[in-house]
Amino acid sequence: MRTERLQALADGVFAIAITLLVLELPHPEGSDDLAADLLDAWPSYAAYVVSFVTIGIVWINHHALLDRVAAADRTLLELNLVLLLFVGLVPWPTGLVATYLRNPDQAGAAATVYGLGMAMMAGSFALVWTYLQHRADLAHPEARPALAAAARRSLVGPVAYLAGTAVAPLWAPGAFAVYTGIAVFFAISGRTAQVLQRDQVLPGGR
Amino acid sequence: MRTERLQALADGVFAIAITLLVLELPHPEGSDDLAADLLDAWPSYAAYVVSFVTIGIVWINHHALLDRVAAADRTLLELNLVLLLFVGLVPWPTGLVATYLRNPDQAGAAATVYGLGMAMMAGSFALVWTYLQHRADLAHPEARPALAAAARRSLVGPVAYLAGTAVAPLWAPGAFAVYTGIAVFFAISGRTAQVLQRDQVLPGGR
Amino acid sequence: MRTERLQALADGVFAIAITLLVLELPHPEGSDDLAADLLDAWPSYAAYVVSFVTIGIVWINHHALLDRVAAADRTLLELNLVLLLFVGLVPWPTGLVATYLRNPDQAGAAATVYGLGMAMMAGSFALVWTYLQHRADLAHPEARPALAAAARRSLVGPVAYLAGTAVAPLWAPGAFAVYTGIAVFFAISGRTAQVLQRDQVLPGGR
Amino acid sequence: MRTERLQALADGVFAIAITLLVLELPHPEGSDDLAADLLDAWPSYAAYVVSFVTIGIVWINHHALLDRVAAADRTLLELNLVLLLFVGLVPWPTGLVATYLRNPDQAGAAATVYGLGMAMMAGSFALVWTYLQHRADLAHPEARPALAAAARRSLVGPVAYLAGTAVAPLWAPGAFAVYTGIAVFFAISGRTAQVLQRDQVLPGGR
Repeated sequence: MRTERLQALADGVFAIAITLLVLELPHPEGSDDLAADLLDAWPSYAAYVVSFVTIGIVWINHHALLDRVAAADRTLLELNLVLLLFVGLVPWPTGLVATYLRNPDQAGAAATVYGLGMAMMAGSFALVWTYLQHRADLAHPEARPALAAAARRSLVGPVAYLAGTAVAPLWAPGAFAVYTGIAVFFAISGRTAQVLQRDQVLPGGR
Repeated sequence: MRTERLQALADGVFAIAITLLVLELPHPEGSDDLAADLLDAWPSYAAYVVSFVTIGIVWINHHALLDRVAAADRTLLELNLVLLLFVGLVPWPTGLVATYLRNPDQAGAAATVYGLGMAMMAGSFALVWTYLQHRADLAHPEARPALAAAARRSLVGPVAYLAGTAVAPLWAPGAFAVYTGIAVFFAISGRTAQVLQRDQVLPGGR
Repeated sequence: MRTERLQALADGVFAIAITLLVLELPHPEGSDDLAADLLDAWPSYAAYVVSFVTIGIVWINHHALLDRVAAADRTLLELNLVLLLFVGLVPWPTGLVATYLRNPDQAGAAATVYGLGMAMMAGSFALVWTYLQHRADLAHPEARPALAAAARRSLVGPVAYLAGTAVAPLWAPGAFAVYTGIAVFFAISGRTAQVLQRDQVLPGGR
Repeated sequence: MRTERLQALADGVFAIAITLLVLELPHPEGSDDLAADLLDAWPSYAAYVVSFVTIGIVWINHHALLDRVAAADRTLLELNLVLLLFVGLVPWPTGLVATYLRNPDQAGAAATVYGLGMAMMAGSFALVWTYLQHRADLAHPEARPALAAAARRSLVGPVAYLAGTAVAPLWAPGAFAVYTGIAVFFAISGRTAQVLQRDQVLPGGR
């Protein structure tokens, strides 16, 4: 199977999931003090930004992954569907955190669900990398030497999210700070790793 | 008509339908015990996963179909629109099942609607295969010998869904178990059939 | 501007508008008789099918149009945005008709809005064809002779929708029957006109 | 990184954001006078049209920008994600304005949020142009001389939106008139600048 097809569905799911986040923002009906109500809903904006950035980074990394793939077999396709299942899920815990982060009794549950969802997304991404490492023949020859390192690096995500999730029941804002930190870390580490170099045209694309 | 165009709309509808499923997940307002409320809503998660996997498999099979098509005539285009009509419908019965699976009196109706919707989707897919079998000149020459077998295999879907639907009014969880089994069966049988072989680049694509 | 770009946005808007229709289907909360409630909501299903088919046909015709375009200037681009504005609008009157078609007092208003929205969509499509007729240099040379006939044929849509709309305030089901008839007419007339012939590969595409 | 990939996500987000606007249109439940209720909701239609046109123009200009880019580095990619974050946000202030423009006490807050959101979108667009001006080596050689003028022109947007926002708390309809004027101005000035000339095929595309 040509990876262009896989990319079409993946790009669609990423674009839709990232844009559906907007539906979780507050729409108070019949508000008497709209400015105050909107300011009160600040966790919604924080959750929107963190989820948007996280999906955006996963999208960038997903393209970096597909750039390395020469041909996809059915297993790779299905592992990608699992990843997309959790990408498409992101608006849901984002909405829960937006609604409950300021409710001290329930914030823990919301932050736990958020962390678990993100851990599953990051974990299924790591699974894709690990599968590719073991089926290096699916990758472009010149990309094969770096697969092991990429697979190893991909484990940081699920481990970090699970660590944040462990904190969530006790201290929801702290857990959410960890999730934010993970997004920032991946944004920066991606830059350092120079995964995507300028003018570098990898094979397998047009 | 070039099949790339058909694919653009199809990929869009598949990606959007699969991502809209997330809107059916529970968003309890003002919950006093969010963890319990979210755990109570387990049919939502089951319905999300089963519908996501089902759409994902239909998408994979739809690409396998289009790989065999050299040129689309207007009838093929319209049959595909019928298929997309039922793909786009999936979030609706998914939401009904999510809401009513734990309500013993109404679960039957929800599971019946789900089964009927899926049977229509699988049936219109079988219609596309059957049309292609009778208009083999629309297919790539090397894909023609296998069209009859593919058309026959495509009948399994609607028959299985109708069997599940027949159980639904009496025993909704059992019907939903059948729907889950169908998704698993197609995921596995697709693998066995090796519909999509590695490195196999079919004509008609780039 | 290359038409591929225009197509990317158009395909996206068509796919999303057609898939968002599903959100207008009934989700009764806490129903005591789900089967009866769902059967009662039959106008929702009729509206879903008619709107889906209408958008689908407009999408097919839009591709037939873009196949004739060699290069787009800014006016053509903006006229297309106007068309997309009304394509994206379709889920709204669809939801109104779904909710009010069985309410004899309000069905007229809903059917009027539906007809006006469709007339605007069909009218802006006619505008695109008319502009192309007057700027035939934007079209592929071999497509130019047929532009006048296509522009003339495109006027049938807005006129028919306005005729249906004129009936709407008096007899909403009759108006909706007209809208359904228009979709069926265009589906059939498109087939007769053989706008899209098999194996016909027009220039301007890949 | 090839810009086609960036374009795939961008086109997706633009198409989805522009189509999600329809969800902000009024769906009165159980209305006794649907015609009057729908006419009363005129700010919804104004907000729909203005937001649709604004996103449409930003989309056209975004393509004009990408046409000038030969290769994207990670910074350009991330600045684009920031732009998309605010494009995806547009349905939210659109819904607020639709709901509150006729409420004299709360319209100011809604119009302020709308103006701020648009200023952030226009500002992040200006940031992309400014970055490209400073990294002219990322642009096509023949596009480089015009980058400074484009970067300068892109500053008009955020400044004009901030001016409109300054008026919003005092006079919401006036502010919304300014936002409308900005959309009209960019639609016209884009035409004058002839950013996209007919038959002009820029390098970097197919």
